[in-house]
Amino acid sequence: MNRSTLIEIIKQRKSFLCVGLDTDVDKIPAGMSMLEFNKAIIDATRDISVAYKPNIAFYECLGKEGWDVLEQTLAHIGNDHFTIADAKRGDIGNTSGYYAKTFFETYNFDSVTVAPYMGSDSVKPFLQKDGKWAIILALTSNPGADDFEMQQIGEKKLFQHVLNTSSKWGSNENTMFVIGATRPEMLAEVRKIVPDHFLLVPGVGAQGGSLSEVCNYGMTKDCGLLINASRSILYASNNKNDFAEAARKEALVIQEEMAALLG
Amino acid sequence: MNRSTLIEIIKQRKSFLCVGLDTDVDKIPAGMSMLEFNKAIIDATRDISVAYKPNIAFYECLGKEGWDVLEQTLAHIGNDHFTIADAKRGDIGNTSGYYAKTFFETYNFDSVTVAPYMGSDSVKPFLQKDGKWAIILALTSNPGADDFEMQQIGEKKLFQHVLNTSSKWGSNENTMFVIGATRPEMLAEVRKIVPDHFLLVPGVGAQGGSLSEVCNYGMTKDCGLLINASRSILYASNNKNDFAEAARKEALVIQEEMAALLG
Repeated sequence: MNRSTLIEIIKQRKSFLCVGLDTDVDKIPAGMSMLEFNKAIIDATRDISVAYKPNIAFYECLGKEGWDVLEQTLAHIGNDHFTIADAKRGDIGNTSGYYAKTFFETYNFDSVTVAPYMGSDSVKPFLQKDGKWAIILALTSNPGADDFEMQQIGEKKLFQHVLNTSSKWGSNENTMFVIGATRPEMLAEVRKIVPDHFLLVPGVGAQGGSLSEVCNYGMTKDCGLLINASRSILYASNNKNDFAEAARKEALVIQEEMAALLG
Repeated sequence: MNRSTLIEIIKQRKSFLCVGLDTDVDKIPAGMSMLEFNKAIIDATRDISVAYKPNIAFYECLGKEGWDVLEQTLAHIGNDHFTIADAKRGDIGNTSGYYAKTFFETYNFDSVTVAPYMGSDSVKPFLQKDGKWAIILALTSNPGADDFEMQQIGEKKLFQHVLNTSSKWGSNENTMFVIGATRPEMLAEVRKIVPDHFLLVPGVGAQGGSLSEVCNYGMTKDCGLLINASRSILYASNNKNDFAEAARKEALVIQEEMAALLG
């Protein structure tokens, strides 16, 4: 999916919600398959979301069966949503080329999350196809972000250095950045470096980030944000029978706030 | 596999060679399956190597079939070698837990390569099982290592900071570090920070690193090194029929140099 289509569906649906499919076999209703659960979540949120983000670890750990579920989940999503393989890949050039092949060809994702640690040749293989995106980790929402991402390198922190350097490898047509919602004030710093790139923002919901603060610091004229919520939507209900209904209700609260913020 | 067993097989085989199974379907003899190729390479190098390192990207890109090959390759390796899933994983804590499950339980690897960018909670889930290891990226062998890993943070470079911080998350019984052979003089700096940890050293062979220089700067009383060679062994022969024989010959040259260096 290219940038203009993404901007268009955001306007149409008055939403920049990404639903994270961190589908945990231990948390879904007993007797229900992972695929059935995913399909129900997708059907319940399809008209009020613009992106789906399967967390690859949750599928990969099930072996071949998990990859089957992933493939069928993607098929159920269809072509009207931006799809993100949350895989955090990255290796030397020729190997990253194979990871790009995995997610862009073997599976037809629009984008892959990529770890920047190994530098340019580890990311560039993800920037070679029209309509395909690398979403580069910059400032993540977890406590460990303090260990390296927030470390000072000269006048900038490491994540700012990553933004500055890696934004030059591609363009705002094929590169996004992960910026956690748990430090919304940092989005002002981010926008000084990448005023126009889309940002994938996890950490709203279960991790405690605030949607309005994220938008206050990070929104652009094209929106420029995909806000991810996973657990708060997927597991909104403890009542096993109404999980899809509860997921929609939770997603709708977020989408309505988004509609207001889009103005 | 625990540290003492690893040290023992290094002494027995007079080798610290890790054979990287970066098996490229486009480079193996026509009509031969990836699994047959892997089995032949393993049989040709079993007695002169101590570790095998499948590069997960090469398997993952083939979808389910690739995971089958990986599983059967592991079964063929057996229990007398240290096995490394070269997967470069790393995510927030609960997700890294699922990646650890993938490689330590679904597949029974001894170790996984892990990207440190996201910090402590992204690595610690790999340090929870006896005999299982995280191999943390510190200074890689690729050109992109200059972009961030070699950047100065205060008095140290980022990779030194990574070594210093992450070596405290576990011990030399469950943590190794990736240090590329393409900058052997850096190994002296590495040994000031982690005098006793095992290092996984790629970049000897096709990428041009020198074995004797690596040992000069990096070897410890317990050896402390696993030297990886992939392409130089796997594709030693352009003659399609004698690839296994050529692989053994190439591995033997390395192993004989290792025997001399072990003294």
